[in-house]
Amino acid sequence: MKKLINDPRHVVREMLEGIVDISPALALLEDENVVVRADLPEQAARPVAVLSGGGSGHEPAHAGYVGDGLLTGAIAGDVFTSPSSDAVLSAIRATSGPAGAVLIVKNYTGDRLNFGLAAELARTEGIPVEIVVVADDVALRDVVEPARRRGLAGTVLIHKIAGAAARKGHSVQEVASIAREASAALGTMGVALGACTLPGASKPGFTLPENEVELGLGIHGEQGVSRSPLSSADELTETLIATLADDLGLKDGARIALLVNGLGATTPLELAIVGRAALAALRQRRLQVERVWSGNYLTALDMPGCSLSLLRLDDERLALLDAPATSPAWQPGIAVQPARKLVSAAPLAATEEPADIGAAPASDLVRAALQAVATAMRNAEPELTDLDSRTGDGDLGASMVRGAEAIETLPRNASQSAGSLLAALGNALRRAIAGSSGPFYAVALMRTGRRLDEARNPGARDWAEAFEMAVASVGELGGAKPGDRTMLDALHPAADALLHGLDAGLSPRKALSKAVQACAEGVDATTRMHPRLGRAAYLGERAIGSPDAGAAAVLVWMRALEKAVTRS
Amino acid sequence: MKKLINDPRHVVREMLEGIVDISPALALLEDENVVVRADLPEQAARPVAVLSGGGSGHEPAHAGYVGDGLLTGAIAGDVFTSPSSDAVLSAIRATSGPAGAVLIVKNYTGDRLNFGLAAELARTEGIPVEIVVVADDVALRDVVEPARRRGLAGTVLIHKIAGAAARKGHSVQEVASIAREASAALGTMGVALGACTLPGASKPGFTLPENEVELGLGIHGEQGVSRSPLSSADELTETLIATLADDLGLKDGARIALLVNGLGATTPLELAIVGRAALAALRQRRLQVERVWSGNYLTALDMPGCSLSLLRLDDERLALLDAPATSPAWQPGIAVQPARKLVSAAPLAATEEPADIGAAPASDLVRAALQAVATAMRNAEPELTDLDSRTGDGDLGASMVRGAEAIETLPRNASQSAGSLLAALGNALRRAIAGSSGPFYAVALMRTGRRLDEARNPGARDWAEAFEMAVASVGELGGAKPGDRTMLDALHPAADALLHGLDAGLSPRKALSKAVQACAEGVDATTRMHPRLGRAAYLGERAIGSPDAGAAAVLVWMRALEKAVTRS
Repeated sequence: MKKLINDPRHVVREMLEGIVDISPALALLEDENVVVRADLPEQAARPVAVLSGGGSGHEPAHAGYVGDGLLTGAIAGDVFTSPSSDAVLSAIRATSGPAGAVLIVKNYTGDRLNFGLAAELARTEGIPVEIVVVADDVALRDVVEPARRRGLAGTVLIHKIAGAAARKGHSVQEVASIAREASAALGTMGVALGACTLPGASKPGFTLPENEVELGLGIHGEQGVSRSPLSSADELTETLIATLADDLGLKDGARIALLVNGLGATTPLELAIVGRAALAALRQRRLQVERVWSGNYLTALDMPGCSLSLLRLDDERLALLDAPATSPAWQPGIAVQPARKLVSAAPLAATEEPADIGAAPASDLVRAALQAVATAMRNAEPELTDLDSRTGDGDLGASMVRGAEAIETLPRNASQSAGSLLAALGNALRRAIAGSSGPFYAVALMRTGRRLDEARNPGARDWAEAFEMAVASVGELGGAKPGDRTMLDALHPAADALLHGLDAGLSPRKALSKAVQACAEGVDATTRMHPRLGRAAYLGERAIGSPDAGAAAVLVWMRALEKAVTRS
Repeated sequence: MKKLINDPRHVVREMLEGIVDISPALALLEDENVVVRADLPEQAARPVAVLSGGGSGHEPAHAGYVGDGLLTGAIAGDVFTSPSSDAVLSAIRATSGPAGAVLIVKNYTGDRLNFGLAAELARTEGIPVEIVVVADDVALRDVVEPARRRGLAGTVLIHKIAGAAARKGHSVQEVASIAREASAALGTMGVALGACTLPGASKPGFTLPENEVELGLGIHGEQGVSRSPLSSADELTETLIATLADDLGLKDGARIALLVNGLGATTPLELAIVGRAALAALRQRRLQVERVWSGNYLTALDMPGCSLSLLRLDDERLALLDAPATSPAWQPGIAVQPARKLVSAAPLAATEEPADIGAAPASDLVRAALQAVATAMRNAEPELTDLDSRTGDGDLGASMVRGAEAIETLPRNASQSAGSLLAALGNALRRAIAGSSGPFYAVALMRTGRRLDEARNPGARDWAEAFEMAVASVGELGGAKPGDRTMLDALHPAADALLHGLDAGLSPRKALSKAVQACAEGVDATTRMHPRLGRAAYLGERAIGSPDAGAAAVLVWMRALEKAVTRS
């Protein structure tokens, strides 16, 4: 299985180096895989050290929780393998003063033995050491007594509580006792959708049939307590919450903290959906959810799935959870609101129908020209469909017919200015035409409309400038440039020719005629262009020989406009 | 493919509800998938709104960046699908005052069209809107011009810069201009180890052969620019950094920010290894890495892989990146140190060799008894190997031989007390014996040694109490209790019998004899016990009929002790 690693034997050391490299408050022991605070006071003045650790593969645990108000150090074994007692002893020596150390150990045999042995060695050296074993896995509740449960993600909350208690200056016995009481008020249960793969391993630890999940998983790629059919996130969450609430004996009004923990490959999208369901299930039981954490707090490499942890709260415990702390991975708990905040999008004073700005009503010529465009579009449908099928998805003909319908069904309003008529048409096209041609025409028409209305009583020069602005807006919107084989290759020469014609003193009709001629030449030029945008870009040479359909559509309505103007 | 979701059609809405449920500063629009700040000032007093969005599946982008000093709102389309222009317009209306809005758009056709169209509609309503298109993908540098590149994870840094500029009170044009300049100084390139799977989809978007990676991936499950053999994390990182540095024209001493972004299923372990390599590669080029972010900032669902982004810094841009901001997913940039912090574990004043505490030297009897234990252990090797093979991994016989060797090679020191002799033996066993028996014997002997040395000149009662403490330490260490079919089932009755015998006035030899008898009965009782700890727990009935090997080993050395004491 592929991983972004170097030598699999060095993953843990290199990972810790990477973490320390971007964590100015952390340091790495030279000869053991132990991360410690870089800013500890001198030995005699140190508060109780709080240490944790275990096999690697649970990142950000444990090094991510080293910091002020949290862990004093973290000991990292190889992936899913307990660290040696020597490593733990080194961590104790590097971080502890006369006040001693509390070791927070997840309930696995290897960790118990190595942390326990190191504690004993430290005691023979005169360092007072207490061990707190966390066994929060409620999935095994029917199988083993509470003291034999595994340690899971809830351990992160115990890190925080112990770290805060140590920071307050409690003795080693007091810190251990506070942490043990919290552990007894803690439960965790998880669900996995699949296994995880160890660095250097050739396959995942187990395989799950499609449509099954493991309930009550461990965090070492081991299998869970039972397999169930994959049900909805809401149902799975209800199962976890029901088990947790029952195991902790939570009654109406009990105060709790919730940790929604991703196991590695679970998307934030899924975690959010699970968190939503968990909050709802807890509120339905009338439990007081006072703090929530959601994220990847203690993972199992790239396992897909999540766990939920509940911790009973009282004022003291809540204060310890809320106490200041800074570490690479710790986040303050969220004080959730009793209800979801929903708001409506307050419109500005302006409405969709622009206020009367005093522009002159659109002339009959404008209305007749629009009608001519609609007719021409309908007639060109077969030709446009054919052209578009050669290099696109073939929907341009149908889109243009929907555009024609939009023109024909525009509400009739005799006092409407040309600008607001075109803006209304743009808005109608936005809704009528799917694909990209709708937005392009919509923006172009709205931009044209705004420019025309600025003139109050627009003349030929205003129309030409509005056209030029509209063409610019199409380029802005899609990021295309002339030469890319798009509608711009028809629009751009037409707008240029229209403005230059007027500047050169041609009559509006003559200038329009020049513009249509330039447009036709532009369309012809597209037969020799490679597409460079969108899906057509992948066609390369195959597009050569046919004109671009979008450009051809421009020529259709330009010619219709020219005829309508000439006829008038 | 399995996901923790409910109806695939509702994933985006339910996700946003889940995010808003645990984000007191965020609110959700009632009828569009838009997340906005819940604490906006009244419309007339609002600074420039900064909005972003796009298809979902990139979480924590974009809703995770809504907050003070960052985005004012985020518009979420369906997974990998642009939001509608209506949704974008609703977001503009819900968040903008007369100062207007800046829309930060990643360079994809759908997003450009819909954000562009919404901007145009907002302008017709009188709201000034500027669009900033981010196109940071340097992988396409040889294929397309800069303006046509895709928008990738570097966009998150543009969110921050624009948000901070808006918070400072800049105008809509100024905010847009600052963000555009930053975009032009930004590059991103990624590597994928596999594809991602859409909620509701039956398979991933593409498949990659084992041992190949996609270089220059997109963030929508689309394929990259080229496939390469899977090389080491260091080599892949060097490729990305080399391309980025070249594209941005970074020279000696250039000031930069680095974003190491996980694409979804990448473990923090891998990200840390890539971050380590990226820092090294940048420093080798003598670039000034002033800020680093590492984590899942803009993902592609559950894609395994990562991207690196580099952003040129100047004082103004750095100040905007550092400006205060609070949102669910934003983290302050890390001001990295010039070198990795390595420390050594300073030992306490106490050394491994305990100071002379004035206890009497160990008697010849103690030394002879230890020697007898060593001999007995060697002789029992075949029996213990056989017993352990029935329910365990069969290594207990060999472990006990290594224990015998440790006894035989203990340094001879005539003035050493019995306590320090046993503590030294414990330490030797810890190193000599792998598996769990080493730690158990080590802790028991060290605890015994401490208790004996407290007595200075220990008598039978001290030995009995030390033995009882040692037995308790074994239970503490492993979490076993009598009845669990472990060595405790031999140790516990023996320690009890020894103490009770002495209490009842028996001579030490008689009491020891009673203890050995109780030990033998305890071993016999294990033949009827189910294993309840460790791997043997899975054997159930199959263990019945043989005694526990660990308990049997205890009886071996108890009997040897008894003989040695009797003989003396």
